[in-house]
Amino acid sequence: MQPSPPAAEARSPIETYLAALHDRHAGHAGGQVANYIPELAKANPAWFGICIATRDGHVYEVGDSRQPFTMQSISKALVYGLALEDRGEAAMLERIGVEPSGDAFNAISLKAGTGAPFNPMINAGAIAACGQVMRRSGRSRIQRIQAYLSACAGRELDIDVDVYRSESQTGHRNRAIGWMLRNFGVIDEEPTEILEAYFQQCAIRVTCRDLAVMGATLANQGVNPITRQQAIAPDGIDNILSVMSTCGMYDFSGEWIYRVGLPAKSGVGGGIMAVLPGQLGIGVFSPPLDGQGNSARGIRACTDLSNDLALHVFNNGNAPLPALRLKYDNTQVRSRRRRPQEQRQALGREGGRVRVLELQGDLVFSTVEPVVRGVNEQARECQFFLLNLRSVISADDASLRLVVELQRSLAARGVRLLVCHARALETRLRRLGADVETLYPDDDTALEACEDLLLANVLGSRFVTAKEVPFARCDLLDGLGAADLSSLDAAMAERHYATGERIICAGEPGDALFVLLSGSVEVRLPGPTGKPGPRIEVFAAGMTFGEMALVDGAPRSADVIALEPVSCRVLEIRAFEAFDERYPRLKIGLLQQITRQLSASLRRRNAEVQAFKGR
Amino acid sequence: MQPSPPAAEARSPIETYLAALHDRHAGHAGGQVANYIPELAKANPAWFGICIATRDGHVYEVGDSRQPFTMQSISKALVYGLALEDRGEAAMLERIGVEPSGDAFNAISLKAGTGAPFNPMINAGAIAACGQVMRRSGRSRIQRIQAYLSACAGRELDIDVDVYRSESQTGHRNRAIGWMLRNFGVIDEEPTEILEAYFQQCAIRVTCRDLAVMGATLANQGVNPITRQQAIAPDGIDNILSVMSTCGMYDFSGEWIYRVGLPAKSGVGGGIMAVLPGQLGIGVFSPPLDGQGNSARGIRACTDLSNDLALHVFNNGNAPLPALRLKYDNTQVRSRRRRPQEQRQALGREGGRVRVLELQGDLVFSTVEPVVRGVNEQARECQFFLLNLRSVISADDASLRLVVELQRSLAARGVRLLVCHARALETRLRRLGADVETLYPDDDTALEACEDLLLANVLGSRFVTAKEVPFARCDLLDGLGAADLSSLDAAMAERHYATGERIICAGEPGDALFVLLSGSVEVRLPGPTGKPGPRIEVFAAGMTFGEMALVDGAPRSADVIALEPVSCRVLEIRAFEAFDERYPRLKIGLLQQITRQLSASLRRRNAEVQAFKGR
Repeated sequence: MQPSPPAAEARSPIETYLAALHDRHAGHAGGQVANYIPELAKANPAWFGICIATRDGHVYEVGDSRQPFTMQSISKALVYGLALEDRGEAAMLERIGVEPSGDAFNAISLKAGTGAPFNPMINAGAIAACGQVMRRSGRSRIQRIQAYLSACAGRELDIDVDVYRSESQTGHRNRAIGWMLRNFGVIDEEPTEILEAYFQQCAIRVTCRDLAVMGATLANQGVNPITRQQAIAPDGIDNILSVMSTCGMYDFSGEWIYRVGLPAKSGVGGGIMAVLPGQLGIGVFSPPLDGQGNSARGIRACTDLSNDLALHVFNNGNAPLPALRLKYDNTQVRSRRRRPQEQRQALGREGGRVRVLELQGDLVFSTVEPVVRGVNEQARECQFFLLNLRSVISADDASLRLVVELQRSLAARGVRLLVCHARALETRLRRLGADVETLYPDDDTALEACEDLLLANVLGSRFVTAKEVPFARCDLLDGLGAADLSSLDAAMAERHYATGERIICAGEPGDALFVLLSGSVEVRLPGPTGKPGPRIEVFAAGMTFGEMALVDGAPRSADVIALEPVSCRVLEIRAFEAFDERYPRLKIGLLQQITRQLSASLRRRNAEVQAFKGR
Repeated sequence: MQPSPPAAEARSPIETYLAALHDRHAGHAGGQVANYIPELAKANPAWFGICIATRDGHVYEVGDSRQPFTMQSISKALVYGLALEDRGEAAMLERIGVEPSGDAFNAISLKAGTGAPFNPMINAGAIAACGQVMRRSGRSRIQRIQAYLSACAGRELDIDVDVYRSESQTGHRNRAIGWMLRNFGVIDEEPTEILEAYFQQCAIRVTCRDLAVMGATLANQGVNPITRQQAIAPDGIDNILSVMSTCGMYDFSGEWIYRVGLPAKSGVGGGIMAVLPGQLGIGVFSPPLDGQGNSARGIRACTDLSNDLALHVFNNGNAPLPALRLKYDNTQVRSRRRRPQEQRQALGREGGRVRVLELQGDLVFSTVEPVVRGVNEQARECQFFLLNLRSVISADDASLRLVVELQRSLAARGVRLLVCHARALETRLRRLGADVETLYPDDDTALEACEDLLLANVLGSRFVTAKEVPFARCDLLDGLGAADLSSLDAAMAERHYATGERIICAGEPGDALFVLLSGSVEVRLPGPTGKPGPRIEVFAAGMTFGEMALVDGAPRSADVIALEPVSCRVLEIRAFEAFDERYPRLKIGLLQQITRQLSASLRRRNAEVQAFKGR
């Protein structure tokens, strides 16, 4: 036995629940330990373990969760997956059917005519599937199977040699099946070596915890959630789960799906591996078997688990969330580029024609369909849509194709669809034909691009951003008289910065404000490791920055970096303070202008907070 | 025929796709129109319609989507649901099995011994299910069935009397089955009337659009997505879908799930109804049948639909989204109650012990489990958790029970778990044992409650909020000399407001600022219909409000309402402007104080925006 898991410091409600579930069924005495070979008959009928493994690799376990036992028929489901990887779906379907036979596990059940086994979960189908696994890279069939099942479990699994020998010595019926399969050409070689591989595959030793992790690997597109290794090719997952759902529990399969509702596979060793696709894996282990060859306690525990935790695969709640997370328009949320008044006013009037849709979760047809429909309906009153994919977890090709098609059909109507925060999806979007010009790394730059195009439309030739603004025409000086202007001119030194130079550093005392004469600067929060963090503002010539720390005496909260060669005028705090006595009217003028700017920013942030809260 | 749908103004990419899919298969000539009764043989073999109905009631349709035809065996799946409602799961399982028989549709397939039909999708099981539907409220069996199927379709369905008569005249085999069922006691009365009801049920006329809507009703927990009527009891949905998934497509069922992966039911009229649980319904109609009795074009169209749109039920992307939408703590986001400096500083230091978790989507075991686990792990360093359920769509009892258990186990460790925005879930949470004291209508009041408790802990007896503050000690006057103070005192009139009175109205010119001497006020955005909207700020005695509009000249953006009897001092804009000449030092002092307050608010809003953007 492996060491037990460390005791959790504070028991979670889920651990409490599992312990109660274990207690509830531990005393159940029904069923018979398999005894067709002596090795299996040695199992302790009291052994009972339950495990749940989540898609992010957490394992809940109770009881004899680390007691090893042999996989037996549970291996059939996974080895079928390996054979699928080796041969492909079409070739596999030619040789092995996928229809439930309604028969018991040891039925021979070959289809009349072709001799194809009804499905890969009965012995005939499982032996045929084992025979489709290829020898590769110097590794024998069983070596490949053992490595594959080990990857599914996330640890090295071994073969119980006594069980294997015992199965091999008594496996006459399976040898008969093997020769029937050879007779019909379902397998291409003499069955002897295939049968030995099959007997060994059934004798691979696992724990109930391993079964839960294997189940979670199936739930997680074949990626083992603990090792993060791609253990099973993702293409075959829906096939494996389909066969488990229709044929996994012998002639109890229909009732199992009806009552428990989880694709599953059981084995005569007493194990059951169950899967809630996309969500979790379950392993249950208890040797006594019921009349259909399934673990008697296992069936009871799984039935309760499914009812108590509402795990039935056809439950309504087990559906993906609508992709639309949040929507707002450019009148509510602007890019972080600070704009001159005329542009601000134009965006205030026309910003409703730029709509942002934040998407989330797994993009599949039915989560994206309402988004496509909504955009299509609103397209008449809009000029730009921005799809923000920042909260998207995954996307299948079907959903990305819809996005690309939507982009194409909107373009024909003169409407642009931009996409931002696509990250890893960008390559796939491009491959599916998305216009590269419409892919932006983040929402801020994308929004800025929309604003620029909208302003060019609305303002025409008046949409120019001055590269250079004379001191007297800078925002801060708005409304000052000639005398105040000249006093201020005398008090503010000129400074120059090169592209990329840091003008203000986060954490420093705020001892000056800056008026930008030429060039532009960006304000960035400090990133976690000294790298620049998110951009929170961009200022162009004529604007003021650094005034907040100056007035409230707090340290600088962000870095300010020159985006190009920058000239500015600097008002030091001492000079600003000296104005109180010397130029009170100038001081009042400056403070009023600063309060106006702060108040405009505050109104904008208030609107953003409301938009981000979805109001 | 019903009228065709209006042409959409701009075709959506989904409509374009469906048209192409229709074109791809319209020419396929395989299959034979059913001819065991003359009425069915009249069908035009070229008829071909495809529909998709979404969970929110939108229907995409192409081809002969409004051509009526008879449901035939498709009725079996839904009538089984009605019988389940009437008799309950246990009684139904006693009489009718749920195991696939591997046999063709017309097999008699009764289990040895009990005589129970293998499953409700073969004729024997369907006739038995029809016999379980009760006569009720003066309505016959077929009247109840017709009303039930009409509710599923969302319109009145009729019976094709010619088809019914023809089926009844030739239904000898089904009569034999009926008497066998009577012989075994599977039905409790002579089969004659049951059989007539069964023949009529099969002759109910639908369109391909109806099938899609019925499928969407099954996908939507039994609620018809167009009429919003609960057409099917939600408890039976997973049972109906289970039986469809294992037995819905005759002896092609295993391969159908393997290749198409949608619970479905076909009928010899040429219809197929398919369901992607929780997501959508599909209806396909084309009369020529393949060797297994399924619509030949229907199988092809559904296979392509499933592959092209990735609809396989065991697809990874068809999984619910993690429930955690956003998390932040009280240092990043505060309640809207403006607090005095000492309290602000205390929250700045200790606010990390109040954590907010915003949840989303459908709460089920595996979406809530990571939240429970995370909270349990962080509980040592926290004092409060607030679960915000505003973006939650639905929650099953299993997930709510976990939340309540978590609350209980945290309470034992001295940690409080609050819940807000629970809306309709509040009743269920309370029924499951949630502490009523911990349920708050919105995040703001919940956060305020956490802050109050935290401050009481941290500040002890120093945590008092003054009911009344002398004018000279109000925030705005901080740092003013005696002379300035007395000038200001003279310039500000006192005003009084009753509880609930509006002190400031949104939209009015901003012509004064207010200093609160006693009582408190709340700032609310105007709601959509004149009702008060969300609360954006609460001010207590000693604080200033209304200064933004005063300095930037913009109209008031929100209402300010007295929460209790309020006294305040008012500084009119004319007086404020007159200070420029008469009391410049006072004016500078006031403006500096205002900029400090605006700048503090702006810093706070910037932090909130970052938190709400998930940074």
